[in-house]
Amino acid sequence: MRMYDLIMKKRNGEELTTGEINFFVEGYTKGEIPDYQVSAFMMAIYFQKMNKRETADLTKAMVNSGEFIDLSAIEGTKVDKHSTGGVGDTTTLILGPIVAAAGVPVAKMSGRGLGHTGGTIDKLESFKGFSVEMPIEKFMQNVNEKKIAIGGQTANLAPADKKLYALRDVTATVDNMSLIASSIMSKKIASGADAIVLDVKTGSGAFMKKEDDSFALAQEMVDIGTHVGRNTIGVITDMDQPLGFAVGNALEVKEAIDTLKGEGPADLTELCLTLGSHMLVLAGKAKTAEEARTILEDIIKSGKGLAKLRELVEAQGGESAYVDDTSLFPTPSIIEPVLALKDGYIKEIKADDIGIAALVLGAGRETKESEIDLSVGIVLHKKIGDFVKKDEAIATIYANNAKKQKEAEKIILKAYNIVQEEVKAKSLIKGIVTKEGIKRF
Amino acid sequence: MRMYDLIMKKRNGEELTTGEINFFVEGYTKGEIPDYQVSAFMMAIYFQKMNKRETADLTKAMVNSGEFIDLSAIEGTKVDKHSTGGVGDTTTLILGPIVAAAGVPVAKMSGRGLGHTGGTIDKLESFKGFSVEMPIEKFMQNVNEKKIAIGGQTANLAPADKKLYALRDVTATVDNMSLIASSIMSKKIASGADAIVLDVKTGSGAFMKKEDDSFALAQEMVDIGTHVGRNTIGVITDMDQPLGFAVGNALEVKEAIDTLKGEGPADLTELCLTLGSHMLVLAGKAKTAEEARTILEDIIKSGKGLAKLRELVEAQGGESAYVDDTSLFPTPSIIEPVLALKDGYIKEIKADDIGIAALVLGAGRETKESEIDLSVGIVLHKKIGDFVKKDEAIATIYANNAKKQKEAEKIILKAYNIVQEEVKAKSLIKGIVTKEGIKRF
Repeated sequence: MRMYDLIMKKRNGEELTTGEINFFVEGYTKGEIPDYQVSAFMMAIYFQKMNKRETADLTKAMVNSGEFIDLSAIEGTKVDKHSTGGVGDTTTLILGPIVAAAGVPVAKMSGRGLGHTGGTIDKLESFKGFSVEMPIEKFMQNVNEKKIAIGGQTANLAPADKKLYALRDVTATVDNMSLIASSIMSKKIASGADAIVLDVKTGSGAFMKKEDDSFALAQEMVDIGTHVGRNTIGVITDMDQPLGFAVGNALEVKEAIDTLKGEGPADLTELCLTLGSHMLVLAGKAKTAEEARTILEDIIKSGKGLAKLRELVEAQGGESAYVDDTSLFPTPSIIEPVLALKDGYIKEIKADDIGIAALVLGAGRETKESEIDLSVGIVLHKKIGDFVKKDEAIATIYANNAKKQKEAEKIILKAYNIVQEEVKAKSLIKGIVTKEGIKRF
Repeated sequence: MRMYDLIMKKRNGEELTTGEINFFVEGYTKGEIPDYQVSAFMMAIYFQKMNKRETADLTKAMVNSGEFIDLSAIEGTKVDKHSTGGVGDTTTLILGPIVAAAGVPVAKMSGRGLGHTGGTIDKLESFKGFSVEMPIEKFMQNVNEKKIAIGGQTANLAPADKKLYALRDVTATVDNMSLIASSIMSKKIASGADAIVLDVKTGSGAFMKKEDDSFALAQEMVDIGTHVGRNTIGVITDMDQPLGFAVGNALEVKEAIDTLKGEGPADLTELCLTLGSHMLVLAGKAKTAEEARTILEDIIKSGKGLAKLRELVEAQGGESAYVDDTSLFPTPSIIEPVLALKDGYIKEIKADDIGIAALVLGAGRETKESEIDLSVGIVLHKKIGDFVKKDEAIATIYANNAKKQKEAEKIILKAYNIVQEEVKAKSLIKGIVTKEGIKRF
């Protein structure tokens, strides 16, 4: 078998066999197939696409390229959640505790990553002393006893995907449904989940800008899950504006605590209840999404969700007193409002730009070496559909540097589009994709 | 400027600017842009194509990537000929002498190359003592005094094309009209020709199998020529069977001598007269192709063409006695006929397979290191449309190894398709492409 022939075959629009896909992934992982052949191959796939069978085969081959996390020592159905990324997405910090409180084991391996704000681990480190470093046995024991543990991603998961993604990233071959879907799913499957709930974002602040593309990506991932025997559900959710109000690390943790108290933003609460109820159904803890939703609402009302967060923070060495006194979280030196320049209705909040403003303030990493400032960020006060008066605060900036604060203010003012005509609020949940098909709301 | 953006732009079907194309060619030649980005870029071009302006810009940038042969010391209009390659193509050995005899300067830089048989230089080395090694001053002097010289390609011509072609060759991105055309034209332009006649082959033994593709390629090259101020004409000629009868090195030289005597195969003679007359017109030695043809026919009849070959061989140290006594050329130990397996009409002679049979015998190079056996090859006796009786010789094999002879025999028998129904002979010249447009015959 020669890589040349695989490129030619795909270029000409033919279907690749399982053997050919395995040959490619193994050869590339081992360094036997050069980058220059693989990048041409990826571009051919970009134009000629892969069918469901090829996509599932690629995913399996990438899973097999590295380690596999064995979660079999954990009792119950392990359900993982994955979000395709957006701005101000604090769901994991809320979902983890409420789902765990419902008895679903949450064995979460998280990363730090690059982005507008830190990853879940960075955010949790806002609790003084919190650590994800622990032996795998301790991690398993925590999940079995407390139903929740957050670990750092140390295993060599799907190295083929890692290598391939780095190449696609510099050769303009990222945006192909099959390649995106197999990249995400290979890591989820290698992480050992039995079932997967996907939060596929759509809109200006999402990777997928168009709703149809988001549905197609969800369908692609659900199909892979079905192919490899992992029950998978995709929920398509709006990312035309940041989720919730807070964008930052400690700020998002505080928002998560508010939400666990039942006092969080409506959209964030709704999203957590929706994703969470699907997780409960997949884990066999409820028959229907409606039944599951009632369970989760009770968990929030009764304070069991907040208690679970407290338990998680304590179990991993963090100061749980922060949960009850959020003034303990790191606070920056500058807290200044952003004032509306005119009266009107909020028509648009460019989520990407809000993310960039947070990055400018120091909330995220531009390179792997960047230091994160956990205290800085933005809290929005107005969302799409809201009315605002001139000089009313549309947001508050949390900063440690006056120059950066001014820069962020400019970006935020440009991100907000204020118009005279009344604007309807956005619906959050656009639809759901299961192996039975697509349901749009 | 970043290569990533150029890939993305072309991937999305946009037009590249002259500056962008120059950036790519310069960066790649210097090694500043990596292969893996360029191969993805080439695949994007394969799918999205380049327009005439982009193709001309790419050609110019590749010309500018290396040396340029300055032929200005040679008097008159320098007309170069290029053939897109085929099997048994002996035209250069005939065209050079007859065109030179008509007063058109022939300053030919030839290569050895890989292929079924050797290149023009290898073939000429069948004349004992013949050499292409000479100082550039001597080369120029020869062209001015004798109107013909054949030099080895020593200059660093279009290195960008060389590097790019090597990459395309292993990434299935060779067959795109713009890329093929710019590759050929960049070398021709860098070689210093004022005008160019292109022999674009079409059919089973050609790179372009379909006639429409061959016309399109010719059009593409004529457009480049027009863009860069080089008068260019493309002649589309049949390569559904080998050209002439001989396939090999010394065998093809003998056939060229026969043709210069007016005793060559009809198709080879016709092709040389057609290409040659266009060269004469471009060089201003005749007003019309018809007038030029008469001049060239006279040159053959009068023996001036053969005399010019004798002069060329002598000037470059070869034994010109060979021209008059072809038994002096190297002869192999085995000369055996290939006998027809049944009665019938020749419907097809797979030119590629005849080429492979010649390669098996040792007439060509498989790798740069291969030694060529100048004496071996194949002489066909039957061409498409001919009738053959069972056990009649359809070809003769010239070999130095009985095992290889048997292998070649098998390939030749399979290459010939003999049918019961009468078959019409093929027309050789399919059409002509000039800057005025396409003319099909």
